[in-house]
Amino acid sequence: MKQTVFVYNTLTRTKEEFIPLDAPYVGMYVCGPTVYSDAHLGNARTYISFDLIFRYLTHLGYKVRYVRNITDAGHLESDADFGEDKISKKAKLAQLEPMEIVQKYSTGFHDVMREFNVLPPSIEPTATGHIIEQIELVKIMLDNGFAYEVNGSVYFDVEKYNSTNDYGVLSGRHLEDLLNNTRTLGGQDEKHGKLDFALWIKAKPEHLMKWPSPWSVGFPGWHLECSAMSHKYLGEQFDIHGGGIDLIPTHHTNEVAQNHACYGKNPAKYWIHTNMLTVNGQKMSKSLGNSFLPHELFSGDNTILNKGYSPMTVRFFMLQAHYRSTLDFSNDAMEASEKGFKRLMNAYTLLDGLQASSQSEVEIQPLLNQCYEALNDDFNSPILIAELFEASRIINSVHDGKLKIDATNLELLKTLMQTFVTDVLGLKNEQTSSDELPKVIDFIVNLRSEAKTNRDYATSDKIRDGLQKVGFQLKDSKEGTTWNKI
Amino acid sequence: MKQTVFVYNTLTRTKEEFIPLDAPYVGMYVCGPTVYSDAHLGNARTYISFDLIFRYLTHLGYKVRYVRNITDAGHLESDADFGEDKISKKAKLAQLEPMEIVQKYSTGFHDVMREFNVLPPSIEPTATGHIIEQIELVKIMLDNGFAYEVNGSVYFDVEKYNSTNDYGVLSGRHLEDLLNNTRTLGGQDEKHGKLDFALWIKAKPEHLMKWPSPWSVGFPGWHLECSAMSHKYLGEQFDIHGGGIDLIPTHHTNEVAQNHACYGKNPAKYWIHTNMLTVNGQKMSKSLGNSFLPHELFSGDNTILNKGYSPMTVRFFMLQAHYRSTLDFSNDAMEASEKGFKRLMNAYTLLDGLQASSQSEVEIQPLLNQCYEALNDDFNSPILIAELFEASRIINSVHDGKLKIDATNLELLKTLMQTFVTDVLGLKNEQTSSDELPKVIDFIVNLRSEAKTNRDYATSDKIRDGLQKVGFQLKDSKEGTTWNKI
Repeated sequence: MKQTVFVYNTLTRTKEEFIPLDAPYVGMYVCGPTVYSDAHLGNARTYISFDLIFRYLTHLGYKVRYVRNITDAGHLESDADFGEDKISKKAKLAQLEPMEIVQKYSTGFHDVMREFNVLPPSIEPTATGHIIEQIELVKIMLDNGFAYEVNGSVYFDVEKYNSTNDYGVLSGRHLEDLLNNTRTLGGQDEKHGKLDFALWIKAKPEHLMKWPSPWSVGFPGWHLECSAMSHKYLGEQFDIHGGGIDLIPTHHTNEVAQNHACYGKNPAKYWIHTNMLTVNGQKMSKSLGNSFLPHELFSGDNTILNKGYSPMTVRFFMLQAHYRSTLDFSNDAMEASEKGFKRLMNAYTLLDGLQASSQSEVEIQPLLNQCYEALNDDFNSPILIAELFEASRIINSVHDGKLKIDATNLELLKTLMQTFVTDVLGLKNEQTSSDELPKVIDFIVNLRSEAKTNRDYATSDKIRDGLQKVGFQLKDSKEGTTWNKI
Repeated sequence: MKQTVFVYNTLTRTKEEFIPLDAPYVGMYVCGPTVYSDAHLGNARTYISFDLIFRYLTHLGYKVRYVRNITDAGHLESDADFGEDKISKKAKLAQLEPMEIVQKYSTGFHDVMREFNVLPPSIEPTATGHIIEQIELVKIMLDNGFAYEVNGSVYFDVEKYNSTNDYGVLSGRHLEDLLNNTRTLGGQDEKHGKLDFALWIKAKPEHLMKWPSPWSVGFPGWHLECSAMSHKYLGEQFDIHGGGIDLIPTHHTNEVAQNHACYGKNPAKYWIHTNMLTVNGQKMSKSLGNSFLPHELFSGDNTILNKGYSPMTVRFFMLQAHYRSTLDFSNDAMEASEKGFKRLMNAYTLLDGLQASSQSEVEIQPLLNQCYEALNDDFNSPILIAELFEASRIINSVHDGKLKIDATNLELLKTLMQTFVTDVLGLKNEQTSSDELPKVIDFIVNLRSEAKTNRDYATSDKIRDGLQKVGFQLKDSKEGTTWNKI
């Protein structure tokens, strides 16, 4: 690769040169959504951040296999009383079927990702699709002595694991501190140690999602699926493991422990974590009343929003912050991003019409180099966007006749914008909403009616014929003029 | 339900009154696509047909759980030589991963379904997500004596099954005829009988998709997944099982046998099959060179197409034939459907602007009844569309001042069009392509330039201000006038 990328590795708490285990192949696993509710805006930020990383590494020539899972096995329980015959007779169709919920929210999640122009991952495996693989991992951990069974459930033995490994390697916390900060086990608890976590859980009769296993009819613990799926599709060790920063202390810590217990190594060489989204300086949460959904943000249909913002505006807003910084949402910040995004895209639109001069008053290569340098420095998109504003300034100056550019530099400028705006940042001009076209046509039809009233039939006919050419037919009747698409 | 629906049942070869097993709940299972290649236009016809059935039953008030699976476990094999260490070291990332192919074509399939405005099913389970359930079925069939194991593979014993059941119940063919028309088993064949089929297949070392089972590391036979998934989500017996007519003799016949062997009953009360799509009178096939993909049909990018047709035009074209008739594709037929679809949608657009009179020269209720009667008769969409053209004729006559309608009948007409065009047929006005708006704006900008040239500054300013109001800003410079969205 011509570019040398540095990434901040949570595991070592330093920026390191990115050297894949087996270049040009790159394996990347990112913890995906739990599809029991609407897609969360904070999650959207995480997936937009990893979309940038996926796009940039792909642009550099790496062959990236990007695995982002869907968590569809959880703790959902039905209140249906299976003991009663009348109910269980109807049960299959009448009761809540978890997979209907999974389908609804998976579709919703994919819709939001498409609106944000987030590329689909290479593989999108589901937890329920990998129960066998999870059971196999539990068997290995039992065989290796890192897990124990109690009453049909299986738990991971954290203290035993820590005696030969470092359980807190990812979070940087010591086991003693963790133990001191965890509540004491109750007398009825099946766990041996306070930090132990479930690998397999025996299902209560009312639990709907359950599968046979050597220990019980039950379901896997939440942390297990990612170990099983990353191993299946990326191998014992791969390059990048990512997710939200909130996953470090428990989910990712337990994932590392599980993989170590099975295969004796940390699954990923580089651990990358995205920071949180806040709203007016506060954590976004339903209880604080400052939470909203992506589609509310698009439509403006929420009291804390002054208006709606397009998906590309929101994507641009998110990329204007570095993925490791907290990102604070406010109406003012969104307004500013909306202006900035329009400025950038307007310049991009002008680019095609620019005329090259025989000489150049500007050199694009240094700017192009700076764009690469920005992303090579731990995918620093805000710095990149600042460079793209400089490129926009150049485009506007050339367009206004204030600056000369030669053909070579103009080509380079086009390459720069195509590469970084379209391919890497994943920004695009948005479909003009279908509301606008009818308004524009109505405006022209009115203009024509005025011309007719003024007996200016030349103009009136010119408008009718011109609209016909671009695909719209006018029809005059006593009620006025109607139009339709040809 | 106020409406009585009759459906043609492949099982009984008659039209029967549709009486769900447990109204208002309706369970419907349709065999979905195999996601190892691009979505096929014939499949699209099947899913559009069942979308009509799903939409109509839902409109009538039934609570339909619609399960449409994705076949993602198949017979794909890799050529990679696992015996060589150098290759297997790289294998996880460098080799073809079947699930990457699954992801690519699942996404493509969903894209095509969205373009056709086909509603997502309630549950979309995958074969790989139900390996455990399939293994459980094989165990039951072995226990019940309808299956046997040979060298780690398990086969279904068709002749034994037929001694107590009717194997040809769905196809209407006798076992003797089937046996006479099947090739003799080779000496190396593991099967006991000529019609026996695999339930579980021991994987060769080079097979990539395989799972542990009590018999071998292997993979399920193709017919098994539908038995397992329909049982899991709809129960031992449900209302409707559907698919393409080509599935009757093998896939559906074997599915019925599997379910009977496990649970002693046919899984579905009504079996519904959609007919084939032909091209200029011939079967669509790659070898005949008359095959094209949905996106080629949309773009016109195939030599046998005169031009492209929009997804809604294609949907309309397909619904103009009854689902049990063959549907012949030709450029002429598509042209005719395109005109018909525009005529229908133009009338629908006029509907909102119609004025009610104090009296009515037309009664809508009989027409509304005929719409229901059309669909109640085995979902006869071509008859329904003929009724909708009659509704369009009424709308046009009222719009042209040739027919009077009162407020009550106008309301009923609106209900009729909303119900049958939008809700049941799933047709909609298509997004105007983004190509058109720039052409229209360019046309107005030219009109303004001419006005300026003629020193008609009043008109020039009026156009500038009018466009500003509908969201477009003009910018004059020495090169001419540019515009952008505000």
